[in-house]
Amino acid sequence: MPDMTRDLSCLVLSCTLKPSPAESSSDLLGSQVLAAFGELGVTGSVERVVDHDVRFGVSTDEGDGDAWPTLRQRVLDADILVLVTPIWMGQPASVAKMVLERLDAELSETDDDGRLLTFGKVAAVGVVGNEDGAHHVSAELFQALDDVGFTIPAQAVTYWVGEAMQTVDYKDVSPTPEKTAGATQVLTRHAAHLAGLLKASPYPAGD
Amino acid sequence: MPDMTRDLSCLVLSCTLKPSPAESSSDLLGSQVLAAFGELGVTGSVERVVDHDVRFGVSTDEGDGDAWPTLRQRVLDADILVLVTPIWMGQPASVAKMVLERLDAELSETDDDGRLLTFGKVAAVGVVGNEDGAHHVSAELFQALDDVGFTIPAQAVTYWVGEAMQTVDYKDVSPTPEKTAGATQVLTRHAAHLAGLLKASPYPAGD
Amino acid sequence: MPDMTRDLSCLVLSCTLKPSPAESSSDLLGSQVLAAFGELGVTGSVERVVDHDVRFGVSTDEGDGDAWPTLRQRVLDADILVLVTPIWMGQPASVAKMVLERLDAELSETDDDGRLLTFGKVAAVGVVGNEDGAHHVSAELFQALDDVGFTIPAQAVTYWVGEAMQTVDYKDVSPTPEKTAGATQVLTRHAAHLAGLLKASPYPAGD
Amino acid sequence: MPDMTRDLSCLVLSCTLKPSPAESSSDLLGSQVLAAFGELGVTGSVERVVDHDVRFGVSTDEGDGDAWPTLRQRVLDADILVLVTPIWMGQPASVAKMVLERLDAELSETDDDGRLLTFGKVAAVGVVGNEDGAHHVSAELFQALDDVGFTIPAQAVTYWVGEAMQTVDYKDVSPTPEKTAGATQVLTRHAAHLAGLLKASPYPAGD
Repeated sequence: MPDMTRDLSCLVLSCTLKPSPAESSSDLLGSQVLAAFGELGVTGSVERVVDHDVRFGVSTDEGDGDAWPTLRQRVLDADILVLVTPIWMGQPASVAKMVLERLDAELSETDDDGRLLTFGKVAAVGVVGNEDGAHHVSAELFQALDDVGFTIPAQAVTYWVGEAMQTVDYKDVSPTPEKTAGATQVLTRHAAHLAGLLKASPYPAGD
Repeated sequence: MPDMTRDLSCLVLSCTLKPSPAESSSDLLGSQVLAAFGELGVTGSVERVVDHDVRFGVSTDEGDGDAWPTLRQRVLDADILVLVTPIWMGQPASVAKMVLERLDAELSETDDDGRLLTFGKVAAVGVVGNEDGAHHVSAELFQALDDVGFTIPAQAVTYWVGEAMQTVDYKDVSPTPEKTAGATQVLTRHAAHLAGLLKASPYPAGD
Repeated sequence: MPDMTRDLSCLVLSCTLKPSPAESSSDLLGSQVLAAFGELGVTGSVERVVDHDVRFGVSTDEGDGDAWPTLRQRVLDADILVLVTPIWMGQPASVAKMVLERLDAELSETDDDGRLLTFGKVAAVGVVGNEDGAHHVSAELFQALDDVGFTIPAQAVTYWVGEAMQTVDYKDVSPTPEKTAGATQVLTRHAAHLAGLLKASPYPAGD
Repeated sequence: MPDMTRDLSCLVLSCTLKPSPAESSSDLLGSQVLAAFGELGVTGSVERVVDHDVRFGVSTDEGDGDAWPTLRQRVLDADILVLVTPIWMGQPASVAKMVLERLDAELSETDDDGRLLTFGKVAAVGVVGNEDGAHHVSAELFQALDDVGFTIPAQAVTYWVGEAMQTVDYKDVSPTPEKTAGATQVLTRHAAHLAGLLKASPYPAGD
């Protein structure tokens, strides 16, 4: 088998509500995912969405200085997209929902064979919170990402949450919880493998 | 103000997957909810659903020995219904879903004024799991219970879950986590108050 | 029974992604809810959230021109809050999530008796979409609103969606679908009744 | 490229609440999925879960006549698993949840390299309902199936629901809605392609 993960790239979008330079647990988990991809030869970067002037909307470009078109090009340039989001009230952050709504526009963007530009790309998810909500957040994100054309590898989520009604942030937990580090390893190994397969053998077009 | 919680009754349905006499975290939380209601003068009992031969279905009686009609009568006799469910895979247990499906039949059961028999009843939720999922479980249960006519008091959920990817059961945590005990207090205080109000002043019928 | 709905007020927050003066199905449903409240003597208004410079965050005031404090005061002044949101990808709009995150701050705001300022307020939900998603959206909103202290009346959602994978907007459906109009009647009748009860008899404080 | 879909097999589990010989919309959609797979050379069958004595539980075998071990073997023998479920109250049927709970046991079943037996298998979803709920149902199923090791192809759901609060069943809609038929084509094309890739190139084991 050729080294299919060669030349793969990823983009990690951190959906924290706080602009830089505030510390962010989502950024931290995102950077850990990026580092784990790096060990597999997958290159990329972490971008904090709220540092860009992304507009609410469901088009590829809302105009008037909208920062989404630039981020969108980076999504299209990457083989793997990782959304990392904090949990608020047991649910995905509004910033993650804003990103998904912008990705909804991809349903209208097809190549000459009628295939979405996202087909062949792989998506995975990172979730952090003080407590409770990671499974549901991954459910929401998996469904929306799958709907707009991404493929979801097996066990494509890494997460950390504390015990019920606790208030510690992931960025203040030290050392990195072993279970989360293990989930990050599985996520990146599977995502890189699957992205390599789909890059070499894209989904066929319909008739 | 008269003591409106006088003569109120509750039914706690435990939706563990395991028949008696297996120990159950859901039963434990349910019995704690019942005890807290008792301190407010609300009487009732905890029933483990899988100890009864409840059938899959969406009618009030699936016939042929179906145990739901008996449980249903107890739901109708109570002022307050509490569903307690374990979390599996971040989601409500199948047994809880089976109960909700049976309650779906109430949408066809109305009094002479066209009001559902559930109108005026209050519902609350208990959730236990090794880790992660309580908020989403309460969302699913609140929505389904509200759809079939129950009213949901403020902060109508008590729950416990461990840290991400841990494996301890609620029944093996000692002493009872303080946060969970506090949530149980709020749940029962609010549910009893609201049930008293609605019993004294039912929702009006439409024209 | 005194006319408990006298002097009740409501605030309808429309969570469309589009600023005015774009037409909005959420605004339309919100105005229909407001009109139905009006027939019950409940006064209020519809506000489109994206017409205000509300910031991402989880505090009561993110500073620097944040428009939330003004909207928040209107939430606190009202007896009934109705969130109306479009469905995107089967899920609540990001703007609705942003509002819920701002409401999360209410968990730290208590009166002298330790009660949240939201206790005693009633919340309901409106949902519109081309297709599919209203039940889940109401589940997410019910849970988050209940978590931060609102009480949810029986059948507290009105909605419209089209058949699977269709593209018609609610604002272009004429006349108003009868089922939706009926659900709006039930929602407003129940919300007004319950808000009146809770205004006259607030939840008791804990010890 | 070799014909990678050669020798692929699928299992469609229909999660209707009704035992045979009752007509079932889930069975109908499942048989349409099976037929579409057939055109791609993927062989398999549709099985109605409630026709078997599957027990509530989270082990591979609950003993005492439990029918899950037989169904489980068929899951393990197939390259592709399709869960088809009706919507009740906007949520997956209890029978689908029961199946997911039984699949949860797979998290403890590994090969000599520590890989789950489900790794390399592909899962997809079918959803039918009178109205509303397909996106959320697919979210719940995608997340649970992904958690236990299945890979989710791009756009891995086919569904039908009617307009808000309508009551027509999918089995009574004629002819088959074009949009649903199109989604079934995409689902099967993608699932077969991805299953072929993963069969030829399994996920690598960790260190």
